[in-house]
Order: sequence, then C-alpha cells, then structure tokens
Amino acid sequence: MISRLCIIGVGLIGGSLARALRANNACDSIVGCSRNEAHLQRAQELGVIDDYSTDIATAVKGADMIVVCVPLRSMQAIFEKIDATVSDDAIITDVGSAKTSVEQAARTGLKTHIAQFVPGHPIAGTEKSGVEASFAELFQGSRVILTPMPENTQGQVLRVSQMWEAAGAHVKEMGLEHHDEVLAATSHLPHILAFSLVETLASMSDRDEIFEYAAGGFRDFSRIASSDPVMWRDICIENQDAILKLMSRYMADLKQLQEAIQNQDQEKIETSFRRAKEARDRYTLKKQP
Amino acid sequence: MISRLCIIGVGLIGGSLARALRANNACDSIVGCSRNEAHLQRAQELGVIDDYSTDIATAVKGADMIVVCVPLRSMQAIFEKIDATVSDDAIITDVGSAKTSVEQAARTGLKTHIAQFVPGHPIAGTEKSGVEASFAELFQGSRVILTPMPENTQGQVLRVSQMWEAAGAHVKEMGLEHHDEVLAATSHLPHILAFSLVETLASMSDRDEIFEYAAGGFRDFSRIASSDPVMWRDICIENQDAILKLMSRYMADLKQLQEAIQNQDQEKIETSFRRAKEARDRYTLKKQP
Repeated sequence: MISRLCIIGVGLIGGSLARALRANNACDSIVGCSRNEAHLQRAQELGVIDDYSTDIATAVKGADMIVVCVPLRSMQAIFEKIDATVSDDAIITDVGSAKTSVEQAARTGLKTHIAQFVPGHPIAGTEKSGVEASFAELFQGSRVILTPMPENTQGQVLRVSQMWEAAGAHVKEMGLEHHDEVLAATSHLPHILAFSLVETLASMSDRDEIFEYAAGGFRDFSRIASSDPVMWRDICIENQDAILKLMSRYMADLKQLQEAIQNQDQEKIETSFRRAKEARDRYTLKKQP
Repeated sequence: MISRLCIIGVGLIGGSLARALRANNACDSIVGCSRNEAHLQRAQELGVIDDYSTDIATAVKGADMIVVCVPLRSMQAIFEKIDATVSDDAIITDVGSAKTSVEQAARTGLKTHIAQFVPGHPIAGTEKSGVEASFAELFQGSRVILTPMPENTQGQVLRVSQMWEAAGAHVKEMGLEHHDEVLAATSHLPHILAFSLVETLASMSDRDEIFEYAAGGFRDFSRIASSDPVMWRDICIENQDAILKLMSRYMADLKQLQEAIQNQDQEKIETSFRRAKEARDRYTLKKQP
C-alpha cells in the first residue's frame, strides 16, 4: 500500500506507527529522520526503520508517505524543508495534538505542496517517550482524527485513512476547531492538572513520605505527568485558546467544590461527586468500540 | 490467629479483608454486619462471610476482632452500639481514610472500651464499591497505616498489625495528623480533582463527543471519579482542614501555570512540567516495595 514510508521524529508515536505498518505488511520500506543520529541508530537496531538520515531532503526523497511526528513548535521548520524536496504525488501527514496550529504551520511551511498535506491526530499514547517505548499494538482499536483541508482530494484523505486503518485504528473526520476543543477537554486539561498536582506535591516538605504512601489512585492519576515536557509545553502554547477557556471553567468548578467543603455542605458535595461518577460510569460502559 | 472476625460494612474493603484472611487461614469464622440484609446475603453466597446479622450487638457477640468498614460519618453511631456489647478482650479497628475524625468518633462512641480501639487505614482500593468488587489480593504488597492511641497496649497494636500482615500488607505506624496530611495529598486531593474534572466535562454541551474521544490518559486520570460518592463526601468533611489547605496550594500553583500559558512563557511551562516528570519518574522507580 505504501511503497516508502518516511517517519520524521522516530519516537513513541512515529516508532509505533512504523512497527504497526511493518507488522501488517502495509509498507515496503521505512526511512527515519531525526536531528539525533544516536536515536536513529537505535531505531534501526530495533528494526523499527530500515535506514535513516538526519537530513530531511535526503529522508523524504522517494517517499510516498511522510509522517511528521515532532513537537508542535518544531513543525513549521520541518514543513519548509519538506516543501523544497517532496515529490508531487507524495502524501504528507502529521500526528500533532492541536490542529489549528498545525494547519497554520503547514500553510506557512508547505508553500507549494499544501494540497498534499492531510492533518491527522492519533488519540493514543503512553506516558513514555522515545523509540524504545514504541510498540506495534499502540493504535489497535484506538481512534485517529483527520481534519482534512479544503485543498485535499478524497483520494489523498483516503490514503492517510487507510494507513491508520492498517495500523489497527478507527478513523474519523472532524473540523479543526472542534478537534482542538474536544482534545483540550479530554487530553490537554487532564495532563495539565496531573503535571500541576505532582509539582505541588513535589514542593512539599514531606514529599518523600507523600510519594511513598501514594497508592493506586494517585499512581493512575499522575501517570500522565511522566509525559514529555517539551511536547506538552508546545501543546499548551499551540492550543492556548481552547485550553485557557477550559481551565477557567474547571477552576471555577473546583472553587465551588472548595466552598462546599469549607461550608461542610454535604448535599452539594455528594451531588457533585454523584454526577461525576454517573458520567464516568456511563462513559466507561459505552466505551467498548 | 483470629477466632471470630466481625466485619461491619461488607463492601470492597471489608469483603477483601475477609477473603484475604480466609484465604490465608488467619481466622476461624467470619460474621458480617450491615444495615442491608440483601448485601449480607450476597456476601454469604459469595463465601466472603460465614454468617451475618443486621444487628450490631448480635454480630459483635463472641468476636475477638471487629473491623469497622463504613463511611466516616457513620462510625460514631456504630462505635456506640459496639460499646454496649463488646467483650473486654476483643480488638476493635477501622479502615477510615481520615484518622483525626475517627479518633474523635471513637472517643465519643466507645466510652468504656476506648483502650481496645486501634485505628488503622489500608492504603488500597479500586474505584469500585460493594462486596461483588472485593478480592483476596487487594492488600497484597500494599501499605497499612496504624495510628495507635495512647491507651493501646503494644499487644493490641500487634494483633491488628498481624491481621494486616496475614492479608499481605506492610504495616507502618504514624501520627494521626501526619497521616491526615499525607493522605490529603496522595489520595483525597487527587480524588477531588478527578471528580471535579469529570463534572466539568459532563456539563459541557459536546459532552458525548468529549467522552467518546477520551483516550488512555483521561481514562486513568478519571478512574477514581467512579468511586463511592458518600464515602468521599464524608472524607471531604472529616479531613476538611488538611484538604482545604492543600486545595488552596494546588489552586495557586494551577493559577500560576494558567498565567504562564496566557503569557506563552515557554520556559516557565517547560520547567514546571519537567519538575513534575522528574518527581513522578523518581517516585515510580523507588516504588517497588
């Protein structure tokens, strides 16, 4: 299906995509590209990529599918380099978590090849980073959102869609801004809250004991605070509007709960917790895809 | 070791303790007590308890170990009933998440038997509730904190300690107030944040789509929002001081992060996330007991 796949940024997501497509015989060869040659060597040793280059022009040469898997604020410079050498029939896609921002970067960077760019976002990941953490099953049963551009043809969107389906994912299309709002709620805000909680606790004088007694609830809650700081810094800046809107809303709700606890308002606290539990339970039941 | 174990409140914790002690031959017989006879019948059907009574006086008769596993604000009334009928050589303990509050309830309720009460708290649980969710391995490798009272003898503390060790747990002693501070940080605050996040999202107009696209990070983060609302309402009220202190601290930290995002202060955001990741990773490495 894909003749030569070029992965720019061979980390958890890029590495897992390469592994999945290879495992499902969905591509003939895979070239990796990164600024860090040691990482690329490791990816080759692990069998994730066949060959590599630290030079984008060399890496994209002959590739019919280019997947950009780098932090959001690194994308524009990469698009510029791709634009200079990419062939006219290659597809370019990405895995960025904030699509309005990626579209802007693409419109600036991909001056002559913008129609070949189909923005995408796999809703999958773990708190780990790097190619060592990648695995072929990461996207199995998960969702991928595509936010096609007006310039894309149906055929171009279909090729990206088929790639993700070959990796085991379910693909849906969505508008840019709606994507950014939904992701701010389900992914960006939870990450911010977890980072912030761990930082609060880590600044306390009895932090050693606090972390020693942290049980399952905290472990799950804080797992995402082990995520890559640069990637998440970029998301906060590039999806600033949607995130700030939600943070304000969340902080207002939290303040109300704080007041209810202050006033020992049993009914209000219980109602609030019950509403949350019902929503969580309903969603968990529905979730099986 | 225990001749007759009396579990008051046969839910996730009480049921799991009963199962664990039976599995490890650490008690001869187990009697359950609850207001709800259907729950007790179910517990007996599941083999968690041997017999039961909805009457506390009947249930504690002949028991040498009584474990109170009910929400915090139900404890005092139960202690009063235990006080009227408990034998002088029985041990009474509990599993409450806020020990200052439990000690007050015990001092009021257990007027003549206060010296027999050894407060305890297993740092274990899942988001599920009820005896159906109980399992013998829940405490395996987990920690139990005892906060002994000045009246307790070493022998009394040892009996509670041995019970939890027989269930697979590691037992430590701690002061009441310190326990309440550590638990507010590692358990109570994370639960409050998760309940509040799910409630915020559940109140949004596109909530169906939000929950549909919620991936692993959110699932883990919000898991604890499926916990029992009454139990957590009681914890919020009974550990009010420690929780409010921490909530203020957390909200101030979150506000700072919000401002950094507002100002697109890349360095501040990245430093904050990096500190959190380092603390989380360090703690995860250390965690293996």
